[in-house]
Amino acid sequence: MSQKIFENVAILGLGLIGSSLAHGLRDKGLASRVVGYDASEDVRARAEKLAFCDEIAATPEDSVKDADLVVLSMPVGATGEAAKSIAGALKPGVIVTDVGGVKSAVITKVEAALPEEIAFVPGHPIAGTEHSGPEAGFGSLFEGRWAILTPSDRTTDAALQKISDLWHALGSDVETMTPEHHDLVLATTSHLPHLIAFNIVGTAADMEEVTRSEVIKFSAGGFRDFTRIAASDPVMWRDIFLNNKEAVLEMLGRFSEDLAAVQRMIRWEDGDALQDLFTRTRAIRRGIIEAGQETEAPDFGRRAAQSEKGGAKSES
Amino acid sequence: MSQKIFENVAILGLGLIGSSLAHGLRDKGLASRVVGYDASEDVRARAEKLAFCDEIAATPEDSVKDADLVVLSMPVGATGEAAKSIAGALKPGVIVTDVGGVKSAVITKVEAALPEEIAFVPGHPIAGTEHSGPEAGFGSLFEGRWAILTPSDRTTDAALQKISDLWHALGSDVETMTPEHHDLVLATTSHLPHLIAFNIVGTAADMEEVTRSEVIKFSAGGFRDFTRIAASDPVMWRDIFLNNKEAVLEMLGRFSEDLAAVQRMIRWEDGDALQDLFTRTRAIRRGIIEAGQETEAPDFGRRAAQSEKGGAKSES
Repeated sequence: MSQKIFENVAILGLGLIGSSLAHGLRDKGLASRVVGYDASEDVRARAEKLAFCDEIAATPEDSVKDADLVVLSMPVGATGEAAKSIAGALKPGVIVTDVGGVKSAVITKVEAALPEEIAFVPGHPIAGTEHSGPEAGFGSLFEGRWAILTPSDRTTDAALQKISDLWHALGSDVETMTPEHHDLVLATTSHLPHLIAFNIVGTAADMEEVTRSEVIKFSAGGFRDFTRIAASDPVMWRDIFLNNKEAVLEMLGRFSEDLAAVQRMIRWEDGDALQDLFTRTRAIRRGIIEAGQETEAPDFGRRAAQSEKGGAKSES
Repeated sequence: MSQKIFENVAILGLGLIGSSLAHGLRDKGLASRVVGYDASEDVRARAEKLAFCDEIAATPEDSVKDADLVVLSMPVGATGEAAKSIAGALKPGVIVTDVGGVKSAVITKVEAALPEEIAFVPGHPIAGTEHSGPEAGFGSLFEGRWAILTPSDRTTDAALQKISDLWHALGSDVETMTPEHHDLVLATTSHLPHLIAFNIVGTAADMEEVTRSEVIKFSAGGFRDFTRIAASDPVMWRDIFLNNKEAVLEMLGRFSEDLAAVQRMIRWEDGDALQDLFTRTRAIRRGIIEAGQETEAPDFGRRAAQSEKGGAKSES
């Protein structure tokens, strides 16, 4: 159904996103050949066994030498060094892209490392799961999701078009915006929620009067929802917070102000104000379901997952 | 498979929990007759049509007059008044129980309203979905979940045993603890998470630089997880925060302290401390899955729900 967009693709970084890309390229016939590389020898060995690439290269230079597309899909703190390591081995006419959750900081580092004539298309698929590593990837990960592209001075129109075609072929919708705007939008829709989830899970784990076993047993009351994103890859998230510091601190400040207001409503028993807030937030959920970004099934459809997998059941 | 535990059951409050109880009692043959009542005329009419009760009574007094079990399943702010309204109509030997998310405040109000000789078993099923109203109920809601019972001075051993049998028959595990401990445990595992979710959804909705449509489109980055519990019933949650004020304020204080520490880690770029926290929180998720309180499927099994229902797809 799809057609080839690239001949030789190199994917550097074979975690959830890199391995899903490799699966997707193969499933949809979008490249002739995919070469993978990962900085971890252990991950390279696991990827070799999983065989979602045609070849696993031993060095970054080797992985890119024939590539007409290079995808940088490591934690954003490592992207600059990765770009440095391949700069001398790139073929003329190659397109380099990335999938990092932060754009401004990554663009600065990658463009300082790459030769000026290399086309770079900064990108970010809004897709993933709480699982990580090469075993976690699957080809349909990007279907029905958004991919954001944030062109820079080094992004040619032709390269932007090809990367846009690639994400469309993988099943995503594509939106283009400035790197700065991306970093603020994602601080709102992704970075702050993750930080809050990590924090609340930490707070609950530290309660002396409530045992760990009680937190786990009675988590269906709401807490377990937070644990999913708090189970996401620690290194990836550390790097995101360090590389999108200003936008995250700005959002944290707003969140804390709002929380102080809610705390005051409770202390002074302002039931009307609480009910107003809780009524307003319901409408947002409705919008997300209508936009096709969420299932309408109660409780994320956990019951369906349960009966298929023999896992657990439902609740708010 | 199950056997009758009660003859005549009255359920006051026909929202998600009340209607699910009625379904469960009928599906499993646990009562001869179920009479329902709701303070809202509109809800009574809808419940009449849905026909999950044998009868919908026109007044609270009528609903309880033949009952050997009365279940109070309204928002906790209304439970005291409901107990008052039925106090004069109760049959000798009746057991009264409730399903409220707060126990200490409810016990005080209910016991002030009921005659001293009536057995009261304060209870709380840790079950629900983000949907509310009589249409949202289903009989398997309590399967695989925990029901907490918090006996008071008015709880006889015989009544405690029968209510415990009831929850077991509905598929739940039962745990007994003091009302005060319940209120602290639930402040941790349920009330604080809901408050944080309501708050973050409000904060995101108020961002001037990020449009509502962007928040919705890119919500798969993490935000949409929070919107599920922030879509829960506003009145029920208002009442919980007002009736469990001290424990919730205590947890909010701890959460805010921890968040200030995380904010400082980001400002001073303490990557090691961030990574330590994020690594620690992963283990809690694992515990919840192993305890059977959560599905192991990535992303809550949203993809399964999607393919069944034609809703949305996956992501972290």
